[in-house]
Amino acid sequence: MTQTVQLLGISNAIVDVLAHVDAEFLDSIGAPPGSMTLIDENQARELYSKMGPATEMSGGSVANTVAGFANLGGSAAYIGKVHDDQLGAIFNHDMQSLGVDIRLAPATEGAPTARSHILISADGQRTMQTYLGACLGLALADITAASVGKPKAILLEGYVWDIAEGPALAREAAKIGRQNGTAVSLSLSDSFCVERHRDSFVEFLQNDVDIVVADEDEIHALLGTDNIEAAVKKLAAYEDKLFAVTRSEKGSIIIHGDVTIEQAAVKVDKLVDSTGAGDAYSAGFLYGWANDRSLAECARYGTHCATTVIQQVGARVEKGLLDNYS
Amino acid sequence: MTQTVQLLGISNAIVDVLAHVDAEFLDSIGAPPGSMTLIDENQARELYSKMGPATEMSGGSVANTVAGFANLGGSAAYIGKVHDDQLGAIFNHDMQSLGVDIRLAPATEGAPTARSHILISADGQRTMQTYLGACLGLALADITAASVGKPKAILLEGYVWDIAEGPALAREAAKIGRQNGTAVSLSLSDSFCVERHRDSFVEFLQNDVDIVVADEDEIHALLGTDNIEAAVKKLAAYEDKLFAVTRSEKGSIIIHGDVTIEQAAVKVDKLVDSTGAGDAYSAGFLYGWANDRSLAECARYGTHCATTVIQQVGARVEKGLLDNYS
Repeated sequence: MTQTVQLLGISNAIVDVLAHVDAEFLDSIGAPPGSMTLIDENQARELYSKMGPATEMSGGSVANTVAGFANLGGSAAYIGKVHDDQLGAIFNHDMQSLGVDIRLAPATEGAPTARSHILISADGQRTMQTYLGACLGLALADITAASVGKPKAILLEGYVWDIAEGPALAREAAKIGRQNGTAVSLSLSDSFCVERHRDSFVEFLQNDVDIVVADEDEIHALLGTDNIEAAVKKLAAYEDKLFAVTRSEKGSIIIHGDVTIEQAAVKVDKLVDSTGAGDAYSAGFLYGWANDRSLAECARYGTHCATTVIQQVGARVEKGLLDNYS
Repeated sequence: MTQTVQLLGISNAIVDVLAHVDAEFLDSIGAPPGSMTLIDENQARELYSKMGPATEMSGGSVANTVAGFANLGGSAAYIGKVHDDQLGAIFNHDMQSLGVDIRLAPATEGAPTARSHILISADGQRTMQTYLGACLGLALADITAASVGKPKAILLEGYVWDIAEGPALAREAAKIGRQNGTAVSLSLSDSFCVERHRDSFVEFLQNDVDIVVADEDEIHALLGTDNIEAAVKKLAAYEDKLFAVTRSEKGSIIIHGDVTIEQAAVKVDKLVDSTGAGDAYSAGFLYGWANDRSLAECARYGTHCATTVIQQVGARVEKGLLDNYS
């Protein structure tokens, strides 16, 4: 029988390859600082051959959130596709060692486990070049009553729409969720991703989504707004839906119908690496939500987790994410 | 034609799997804190299943030194055996991206690339559980005039003696080196390794070695001494051989016949992870030596590199190791 958990993540299962680079390097590969670009296997090989020494650790946006959620003490499960190779084993180990229930077996055919080359600039900004590999094999058939189970919430990511069967499997997950009283949440991934799939996201939001976690740029891309006040007004019109909008050093705003909560950011001495800030915020926010905390407390959890993760290299915090929470 | 370099490393090619653990974890696996234990594939699988989330980066003692040497700007080459798998590709990439000339092709048969599970305690001490895998296939036949070339120095590590053909291939490398005026240097790896192979090390030292880099425990294990004064006296008796002995917070001592140079350690605010301190010292010391610096300057380089590496997680420093050197 499928284990019942608080949160089920469905997303691209990726191992990060992290290296520091200078502005000239980003320029030489034609990557706008802060962007996420999808690359193919040949491009990945060429990029890697140009990169300096790197560190490998499990990544993937919603996968990071699921890991963070489990790190906080929440019960979690995960649906994503790795290949039966060493990076796939690393990805699954890092999840399972946190108690996350891995729902799919590694693929024994097809492309290798996905890698995201995360190029960290001196100012802590990260530019991603992602080879999706085995993730592209995630299929509608992987989403079943058994694999989804009856979690309190499902979390999908916008990047799933970059997979051929992504939109269909997202709808299927939402359908199964609705039958079980599961909340459906969506992380918007990045503003370029929103541009790629705006119409589909809007439709999915209207029909299937209960909770959206996103940064301000993503929200503007979704709504066609250009200032936070206009965006908040539009989000408030979705009366029963819950939005958590992160704004970097400006903090975050929670919108739930006519309730709006502003949470300030925490000043940090040194921004080491912004990788995973939004993912960590989502982990804290959803952990609070799944444990029936007030929305204000959810925002404080999210802020604490994001503040912790940007003061280290990489998107996941190895030790207790709630350490030093007060 | 083989590229001529300053330093050729010959050692176990290993990818580190780094995780923080508590004292109970070390106790539960029966590992004395600070030790290096060789484990087989099944033990590696079992240990990994118990470990928390980890980070992967290229490692291996002399491999770290070679990477550090190249990071400092030295020209370097490397002989070690990885498998043709993802971890092997990571190991070779991290070397080649620093300009290190990889002399052997990955093995297409046999065991996977070696992994060292590095368990970091709260006090920064590291306990290693190493699965040698593909390293065990490094063979006498891999050491040829073509693969060795004519470097200014060869650097071997004591751990090579844990490989079946290790002692033979070390002697062969030294023999080829002697024919070309190459200095033969040896890192003693760890005191348990010295215990395992003492007689062979003493013989190799007397017949083949010009430079030894080691920590104080290793030197005592080699010489049967129990205080630094007695050790220095014995090392000074090897008139033409050069010894660099590291002593953690007590600094280091260089001994070359009747010349003894003491170098103080640099105080650090926080010891993050002692992994690779000795390897980094060796990189700095040999870089100075290969560039004809005074022995005092060599010791200062070594100290600078070790001080840098213990203030971060992992054995390799991604960016310029000479940054902040003064």
